[in-house]
Amino acid sequence: MSAGPLVGIVMGSRNDYAVMRSAAEMLTEFGVAHEVRVVSAHRTPDLLFEYAETAIARGLRVIIAGAGGAAHLPGMIAAKTVVPVLGVPIPATALQGMDSLLSIVQMPKGVPVGTLAIGSAGAANAGLLAAEILATTDAALQAKLVAWRAARRDEVLAQVVGDEVGA
Amino acid sequence: MSAGPLVGIVMGSRNDYAVMRSAAEMLTEFGVAHEVRVVSAHRTPDLLFEYAETAIARGLRVIIAGAGGAAHLPGMIAAKTVVPVLGVPIPATALQGMDSLLSIVQMPKGVPVGTLAIGSAGAANAGLLAAEILATTDAALQAKLVAWRAARRDEVLAQVVGDEVGA
Amino acid sequence: MSAGPLVGIVMGSRNDYAVMRSAAEMLTEFGVAHEVRVVSAHRTPDLLFEYAETAIARGLRVIIAGAGGAAHLPGMIAAKTVVPVLGVPIPATALQGMDSLLSIVQMPKGVPVGTLAIGSAGAANAGLLAAEILATTDAALQAKLVAWRAARRDEVLAQVVGDEVGA
Amino acid sequence: MSAGPLVGIVMGSRNDYAVMRSAAEMLTEFGVAHEVRVVSAHRTPDLLFEYAETAIARGLRVIIAGAGGAAHLPGMIAAKTVVPVLGVPIPATALQGMDSLLSIVQMPKGVPVGTLAIGSAGAANAGLLAAEILATTDAALQAKLVAWRAARRDEVLAQVVGDEVGA
Amino acid sequence: MSAGPLVGIVMGSRNDYAVMRSAAEMLTEFGVAHEVRVVSAHRTPDLLFEYAETAIARGLRVIIAGAGGAAHLPGMIAAKTVVPVLGVPIPATALQGMDSLLSIVQMPKGVPVGTLAIGSAGAANAGLLAAEILATTDAALQAKLVAWRAARRDEVLAQVVGDEVGA
Amino acid sequence: MSAGPLVGIVMGSRNDYAVMRSAAEMLTEFGVAHEVRVVSAHRTPDLLFEYAETAIARGLRVIIAGAGGAAHLPGMIAAKTVVPVLGVPIPATALQGMDSLLSIVQMPKGVPVGTLAIGSAGAANAGLLAAEILATTDAALQAKLVAWRAARRDEVLAQVVGDEVGA
Amino acid sequence: MSAGPLVGIVMGSRNDYAVMRSAAEMLTEFGVAHEVRVVSAHRTPDLLFEYAETAIARGLRVIIAGAGGAAHLPGMIAAKTVVPVLGVPIPATALQGMDSLLSIVQMPKGVPVGTLAIGSAGAANAGLLAAEILATTDAALQAKLVAWRAARRDEVLAQVVGDEVGA
Amino acid sequence: MSAGPLVGIVMGSRNDYAVMRSAAEMLTEFGVAHEVRVVSAHRTPDLLFEYAETAIARGLRVIIAGAGGAAHLPGMIAAKTVVPVLGVPIPATALQGMDSLLSIVQMPKGVPVGTLAIGSAGAANAGLLAAEILATTDAALQAKLVAWRAARRDEVLAQVVGDEVGA
Repeated sequence: MSAGPLVGIVMGSRNDYAVMRSAAEMLTEFGVAHEVRVVSAHRTPDLLFEYAETAIARGLRVIIAGAGGAAHLPGMIAAKTVVPVLGVPIPATALQGMDSLLSIVQMPKGVPVGTLAIGSAGAANAGLLAAEILATTDAALQAKLVAWRAARRDEVLAQVVGDEVGA
Repeated sequence: MSAGPLVGIVMGSRNDYAVMRSAAEMLTEFGVAHEVRVVSAHRTPDLLFEYAETAIARGLRVIIAGAGGAAHLPGMIAAKTVVPVLGVPIPATALQGMDSLLSIVQMPKGVPVGTLAIGSAGAANAGLLAAEILATTDAALQAKLVAWRAARRDEVLAQVVGDEVGA
Repeated sequence: MSAGPLVGIVMGSRNDYAVMRSAAEMLTEFGVAHEVRVVSAHRTPDLLFEYAETAIARGLRVIIAGAGGAAHLPGMIAAKTVVPVLGVPIPATALQGMDSLLSIVQMPKGVPVGTLAIGSAGAANAGLLAAEILATTDAALQAKLVAWRAARRDEVLAQVVGDEVGA
Repeated sequence: MSAGPLVGIVMGSRNDYAVMRSAAEMLTEFGVAHEVRVVSAHRTPDLLFEYAETAIARGLRVIIAGAGGAAHLPGMIAAKTVVPVLGVPIPATALQGMDSLLSIVQMPKGVPVGTLAIGSAGAANAGLLAAEILATTDAALQAKLVAWRAARRDEVLAQVVGDEVGA
Repeated sequence: MSAGPLVGIVMGSRNDYAVMRSAAEMLTEFGVAHEVRVVSAHRTPDLLFEYAETAIARGLRVIIAGAGGAAHLPGMIAAKTVVPVLGVPIPATALQGMDSLLSIVQMPKGVPVGTLAIGSAGAANAGLLAAEILATTDAALQAKLVAWRAARRDEVLAQVVGDEVGA
Repeated sequence: MSAGPLVGIVMGSRNDYAVMRSAAEMLTEFGVAHEVRVVSAHRTPDLLFEYAETAIARGLRVIIAGAGGAAHLPGMIAAKTVVPVLGVPIPATALQGMDSLLSIVQMPKGVPVGTLAIGSAGAANAGLLAAEILATTDAALQAKLVAWRAARRDEVLAQVVGDEVGA
Repeated sequence: MSAGPLVGIVMGSRNDYAVMRSAAEMLTEFGVAHEVRVVSAHRTPDLLFEYAETAIARGLRVIIAGAGGAAHLPGMIAAKTVVPVLGVPIPATALQGMDSLLSIVQMPKGVPVGTLAIGSAGAANAGLLAAEILATTDAALQAKLVAWRAARRDEVLAQVVGDEVGA
Repeated sequence: MSAGPLVGIVMGSRNDYAVMRSAAEMLTEFGVAHEVRVVSAHRTPDLLFEYAETAIARGLRVIIAGAGGAAHLPGMIAAKTVVPVLGVPIPATALQGMDSLLSIVQMPKGVPVGTLAIGSAGAANAGLLAAEILATTDAALQAKLVAWRAARRDEVLAQVVGDEVGA
């Protein structure tokens, strides 16, 4: 795997890292080189454009963008690059992330954003999906993903809830 | 009033003009110089930035932006200019404009978009609100607005629904 | 700039000031003369009418109205004046502000209310948008707004989230 | 029963009568004297106030108000009179009446509006509830209501759906 | 006014009294004789029927019913009596009262329930609306209601929020 | 299998049979004896009670109840019998069945209603689930259900969508 | 009643038992033999299939499945067996169980899931409905259910809320 | 590019191809080898498992799954393979695709589905996103994507809406 980051994780504010940390941790677990940046669609639009425009040249293969409220970051990055963009709705307002989910997923034809679940589960899954994308041409990574899944399966298989009657 | 347009009306596609026409017609009714442009947040992001960055220099005092689905156009223009931006949600998807309403109105602190109702009523009201904004320093325009309101009132006063019993 | 208030901030109850304070603080930050009044659509409808009817004569150029639940204050003020009205939905009920958002934004053709986000972010943005409106004819204020935006941008640019792997 | 109307039916536009007609028809069926007026909260706010302020003196015992979108008519009438107000949400926008339902029903403590279902069923029921209110002190009307209910019951009892197997 | 209760307040469980107490307190404030009963649509359906069937004979002029979740109590009482029924949605489930609001307000043509806001504000308003209904034939009670409104108005007029700049 | 009906299908109006017919047809397909009745919670509450109270004595093993709007029929039948009740939300109002779904499914602890999907798919599945319940003690019926499923599987397996590239 | 479990309770994670415990407790109260298993649709799909495929042979007559978020467990079990499946939405995400309710209840024609309320009330009712299903061929169990209902009724009848005026 | 299909498009019924055709057409436009299969989560669960289990061996690098209602197809495929799965909500019920959106996007931690917009726009974008994923290691395909975007941009730039005043 290349020395530079393959996955970029961006979010509009350092506060969002409480949620987006799960994406970074997942990539770390799989040894996927990544970077984490604060890029705000509304407060640093020029940085957003620069980040997206240079993504291919910098070797990024997937960009994960998390945002809350009227969440424009994932869609605007996707508008400026053909690198696959994954979006994570962050529950940051009174509407509990339903606003950011719709703002991210309902993109018009021509500019896709692969959207994950609201909050930390979605952030972790964005990391996993990025790893799956890289693994389509990296058999070793794919094997790690398969092994990780097997470990999750074994965790579930080991869970017992003892509260039965009449057996 | 200046010879150049004072209000810019933008939308992501010519199809959106079915709704946004109501904004233009309202401005025409009040004699407010305006322009109408197709600017797509997702398909022409560079044009969006250029449009917003040059708005003050070109003399625009209000920008009206209409968008459907994951509606990023109003918020991204607002991110690039301090000209007041008014947003119009367009019902373009299965979610009937609820997606675009939330995508437009739920802007984070720092970048405001004054949002109007979903669809044509909202577009017309965006035109009216733009005129009201210009009228804060244009007594003649303000008088026109007051007269227009009085005419609407008189229309209602003239409506009769005859279906009474027992008078 | 005139000695009297240019912006009126109204709300239905002193409790709403927990949210609406953000509007006042923003105007204070920009040195915009403003007033803050408790005006209830449902408990003081006559005061509401008087406030709206005298707004132009008193020199108000923008009115910011915050309300929760069945939020009628912004729309009813707008019905009585052609001064631009900005509405702020306040999350005051079990429905978390969705009720007040729809009550404010879905105004019929003819009486516009520029609606901001639910809660404090929306209140702050109402203050900002009011300042932007005044700035369309006040170059000094416009310069302040541009500088404020630049400061927000620099805050974001200074944020670092250190959690990278493999660089 | 008095010669003047006991129930006032108001709506913001003649178009709303397509829905509100059901209220008038129900009152006609029970011989309840009523009037029908176009009163718009947003276009004729002064008429709204005058209508509400004179309601008691004119002998109105119930006011039925129908409205769509940001539906302020029922609540603003209720703010100006202690005559019981019944509200009917009209599905007039892309949001199918959910906006008007919330705008009408979520009134703050102190100013009640008894809200009925969205659309014609709600309008008919507003007429019925008005009759029920009058019937609390009018035994003859109460008997009519009981008889009407019995007739509805008999209609249902007469309905047969023949599609059975194995009896 | 009669010695027996004129208004019946019913709810499905003693727990609901945390919300419905506001209805009783309002009636107490106006000196309206009332009773409070636990009647569950789902656990005591026969009691519900008996309560509704005997309401007229017992002198009840209004019934206030509060319920949460799949809220059937108001509608089923309304199905069994022509006494006016007012419904109060109680936020008792994960859906925050939206389920009970729709279960109460969306009654079919023929059986009306006048629905108030979700929670304590709605309960208080149910008490107020009941008093307004009784006041249509009780001038003294009507005067009390008018005075109560005036007191609420004065409370608002006395509220000051001091945070102004530039006056 | 008994000669009398094992499954009762009830609905509030003959109009609802456009949806509920799918339940009857499914039971007919499996040879399950059933009856179809119009029983309205709001217009024939006494019939509802009688129907539910006599269900066990009449040999009913499952009751399927369909209702729209404020859908009280399934829950009130369930309140009056321990025969399993299955509920079908019917999209009969502007809210497209979301109101009836919540009115049926959100039953309080103690009185269950097994709820199916909104509309005809839900009605058909209510018929299927009733058959599955009867089949728990009827091996022949269970075999029919297994065979029916296999036929549905084979239908899918036979579907081809030819639109491929590059194979 | 058979020595082996008649009802299987499954859930995706041990954490879900905080909600699903209510189903087990209800079955214990009625002496219905049952088992509790952790089976995850997404982490142990093979176990899910095996569980469903062997359900009939193992003597299960009802399966209760609880799940949160994108809740696939109930529907996928139902896809693999004709044993009646009852689904319980668990409020595990920012959307408060609305996501799991829709994921469970909106099954397509051919594969039914009888869905209960969101959360613990729904879990308890799933246990009750399972008992009702078994009781259709077990008179002793049916008598227990009738007695349990009577006890619930008596609990309600004993509740008093003392806050009356004027009796 | 390999001779076998790189992308698999699956859907639960041939009817869904009215929506999913847009995904296939997009892949055809970019010359990406793909296959289209009818695979139903609920009617052919074994086929679903087999399809997912053999996806890597058959050379699939991305799977696009479209589903309506309680949409389990994308999530269950994702549960059985580490090939990236993209989900498309299909508006097939009274809830207009909101049910399928939540059923697809709200996946728990560990099993990601990259979700696109409801309906045809989402299907087209699923095709585009699949192409973007393949293009991360295919410079020629990436160039095609860049060119396609440029063509879309030029289409927008060529759109003119002529309705201006006062220029």
